[in-house]
Amino acid sequence: MLVYGFHPVREALRHRPHDVASVLIANGRTGRRRDEIAELCARHGVPVRQVAAHAIGGAPESVHNGFAAELRAPSVAPAGSRLSGDPDFLVLVEDVQDPRNLGALMRVCEGAGVGGLLVRDRGSSPITPAVAKTSAGASEWLQVERISSAAQELERRKRDGYWVYGAAAGGEAPWDVDLTGKVVLCLGGEEKGLREHTRLACDKLLGLPMRGRVESLNLATAAAALLYEALRQRSSKKR
Amino acid sequence: MLVYGFHPVREALRHRPHDVASVLIANGRTGRRRDEIAELCARHGVPVRQVAAHAIGGAPESVHNGFAAELRAPSVAPAGSRLSGDPDFLVLVEDVQDPRNLGALMRVCEGAGVGGLLVRDRGSSPITPAVAKTSAGASEWLQVERISSAAQELERRKRDGYWVYGAAAGGEAPWDVDLTGKVVLCLGGEEKGLREHTRLACDKLLGLPMRGRVESLNLATAAAALLYEALRQRSSKKR
Repeated sequence: MLVYGFHPVREALRHRPHDVASVLIANGRTGRRRDEIAELCARHGVPVRQVAAHAIGGAPESVHNGFAAELRAPSVAPAGSRLSGDPDFLVLVEDVQDPRNLGALMRVCEGAGVGGLLVRDRGSSPITPAVAKTSAGASEWLQVERISSAAQELERRKRDGYWVYGAAAGGEAPWDVDLTGKVVLCLGGEEKGLREHTRLACDKLLGLPMRGRVESLNLATAAAALLYEALRQRSSKKR
Repeated sequence: MLVYGFHPVREALRHRPHDVASVLIANGRTGRRRDEIAELCARHGVPVRQVAAHAIGGAPESVHNGFAAELRAPSVAPAGSRLSGDPDFLVLVEDVQDPRNLGALMRVCEGAGVGGLLVRDRGSSPITPAVAKTSAGASEWLQVERISSAAQELERRKRDGYWVYGAAAGGEAPWDVDLTGKVVLCLGGEEKGLREHTRLACDKLLGLPMRGRVESLNLATAAAALLYEALRQRSSKKR
């Protein structure tokens, strides 16, 4: 997994340097921040590669600011590591452009015990400091994986035994659907909801009943209602 | 009062076109949303002015999205007039200073079918255009009552047969509590939660289980999880 931007790279080097496979620094990047990253890499024996700014993928230069870190697969994270949450309880999201919406979503996911957030790379905000801030710290704990194709990811998850649910207007009330077991909940962007390919890859669509006149909830509040219903079902005590 | 953004303008035109003095549409704004607003204006004889995007005041372009409406009256309806939602399902909130938080809360309340939002006047944001915008039109429909004392209001409601529940860390999981019948759900501000006087006036405290490391959810997401759990219980079909 690639993380980029000064703060995420620095936090990764500070908190879990052994998870950092390598760090990319853009040519021509100088100054205190560059020195701090280079010094952290030297201290922890993390290899640094100097590359052209445009060669740092995944985000525009204005976002990565010349820094990226390649993190090792979560499976090599040490026991008792930062990864928390239930690995059978995943969320996939696509087209979340607003960093505040992504941060708010991460906070809800982490709070509800989600084991991983799969973010469709294209069309979604990277994990910026604005995201980290809105997430109230969840970005340090929630496992986030950037994926290129939602449909392919979902097919792979289905082969692994996951049931895939998509949030969409007109779907079944979440409390009428079994959300225990291995579950991926798919959420679309603020404007258009899930893409058609993603919707078609879902086993079932879930829709929160809208009892007033507004047509939908925002991303984080819809996630909160759906994830806490899932958590209710997944808890031993059921009403 | 100026409201801006597609949803607030559309809801004003749908719900009370006679209160809409004029509508502003930014030059160059095209597409389905523009057509819908223009069509509503034509139907109700509301004058439309095409203006430069930067001439739409009160919010950056990324917020008003090219639409604004000048209203003759604020969106506060006479008591009982446009009440939608369930009058036995109320929310009380105090110390919501951020207009965006209040708007997001209103959207959730309206969507979940709440019959009225009681806002403690002191320490809370008034219903500004920013609130209307974040509420996605809910401020046009949700009945809002500003109250001076939460504790007095709750005592009055209890005499009317309501059960009063407060959201607080460490409270009972909402699915272990009966949230049917006449209910007031009390929510505190973003920083400190419910005031002590208010907490003491509650019959019971509800707390969402936090399964990760973050300590709490934000106001609107906590409201979404709690209100949709109440709605689940209040719906006929229960899991």
